[in-house]
Amino acid sequence: MISAITLRVNYSETDQMGVVYHANYLIWFDRARTELMRETGLTYKELERQGVYLAVSEVKLRYRAAARYDDLVRVRCWVRDLASRRVTFGYAVDEAESGELLATGETSLVSLTHQHTVTRIPGHVLALLKPIPDPVRV
Amino acid sequence: MISAITLRVNYSETDQMGVVYHANYLIWFDRARTELMRETGLTYKELERQGVYLAVSEVKLRYRAAARYDDLVRVRCWVRDLASRRVTFGYAVDEAESGELLATGETSLVSLTHQHTVTRIPGHVLALLKPIPDPVRV
Amino acid sequence: MISAITLRVNYSETDQMGVVYHANYLIWFDRARTELMRETGLTYKELERQGVYLAVSEVKLRYRAAARYDDLVRVRCWVRDLASRRVTFGYAVDEAESGELLATGETSLVSLTHQHTVTRIPGHVLALLKPIPDPVRV
Amino acid sequence: MISAITLRVNYSETDQMGVVYHANYLIWFDRARTELMRETGLTYKELERQGVYLAVSEVKLRYRAAARYDDLVRVRCWVRDLASRRVTFGYAVDEAESGELLATGETSLVSLTHQHTVTRIPGHVLALLKPIPDPVRV
Repeated sequence: MISAITLRVNYSETDQMGVVYHANYLIWFDRARTELMRETGLTYKELERQGVYLAVSEVKLRYRAAARYDDLVRVRCWVRDLASRRVTFGYAVDEAESGELLATGETSLVSLTHQHTVTRIPGHVLALLKPIPDPVRV
Repeated sequence: MISAITLRVNYSETDQMGVVYHANYLIWFDRARTELMRETGLTYKELERQGVYLAVSEVKLRYRAAARYDDLVRVRCWVRDLASRRVTFGYAVDEAESGELLATGETSLVSLTHQHTVTRIPGHVLALLKPIPDPVRV
Repeated sequence: MISAITLRVNYSETDQMGVVYHANYLIWFDRARTELMRETGLTYKELERQGVYLAVSEVKLRYRAAARYDDLVRVRCWVRDLASRRVTFGYAVDEAESGELLATGETSLVSLTHQHTVTRIPGHVLALLKPIPDPVRV
Repeated sequence: MISAITLRVNYSETDQMGVVYHANYLIWFDRARTELMRETGLTYKELERQGVYLAVSEVKLRYRAAARYDDLVRVRCWVRDLASRRVTFGYAVDEAESGELLATGETSLVSLTHQHTVTRIPGHVLALLKPIPDPVRV
């Protein structure tokens, strides 16, 4: 399963170089991951209600071209890899109209209890997170 | 009591107009208010530990001149007004070297319980928050 | 004309009180204002291309109820007031499903040249910005 | 040369998990990198004045322990690697009082002209950016 969201770049996301400030891509990844979870049938909100917290433990990000104010950008998200305590999501950001690839990345998340100790991802969650081959080179 | 902090404008705070994006001033106000609380002898962190939450209920902000990347800005904060359930802080932002006034504002905060219902500000907190006349016109 | 956008609250917008951090509402206002401009037929992006910059000069904001993670919020925006060098927009934020009013506010913007000096709003822009009565009490 | 800054975690940086939202570390890295540049004798601000722009092209980040509201965190920054068009900075974030390592990372930046095309880093800048061995495992 690949999830895709489309975002409009807001003025607040630009910097004085006239492009999107690089940290905002992590927020876009988060938005895309949230929608991927929703599409599995189990929202992250519901997951937290069940006492399961997923915390980002690792980030890799490559910027290939700049996003600019008022651009429509598409952010795709998928599961790259799954282990008992850790899930890795892949991301590709492109300019929605031209399809130009702007960035790729991955984030690994570990499963935490409410007390913030690492724990196994519950079976019913593992069953929803199916790794697929990368649709683009990350 | 007037508290003052000095901040260096970071690239992340600029926008493509080449100035500080306006929403960042609210974060600067928060930083200044946190230090004012610390100087009263009761940090906001400790206040939350005691079960008292202060939530922003109202904001007024006037921008007078632009802050720019790498500027040193000084943010002053003081108590403007105090009521049983509400405290209003005043703020003045100026360019630290020239003293040019960049912005002024106020935020009102209401006291909440952990369940997010409005409650009286405890007496020991009221005693620390002494309103003073505005040092600049807000 | 009233413009309305619907946003999903992202994790990045929450704070440790479990609600949306107050400064994010200014960013939501910006998003709504951008769409209002687009609906007039003249995007803000195009306005900057024409050498007209609108800079926020004043903000008023009242928080009435908290927005929470994963909420859908609707942000309405309209023109409240118009002068030769200044336009004031009004905003109302509500929880999209229940319709509960979460916040109201206004921002005034002044027209700047590329050199950041205040100037008249061009006639063709004034003609697009028609003030209307407030749909809710701001 | 290793540069170090100390930051106080602000409320705006927390999320509803009660810890610092992960994207903020990239902003902390930026702050630390800015001060490293300043300590070389050539600020990034001056570099842009000379027509040299450094844009982040790659990020790696490992989160090891959570930073929390009101914590003092120390962010160290150094040059890891240098090439004709690219400089890689390393970072280590720790809790200032306990010294606990919270995160490590690196960012690579490429040199751009004002027209956003990749170019060589000027010789006088290369001379200031001296790679050193990592003080901690990144």
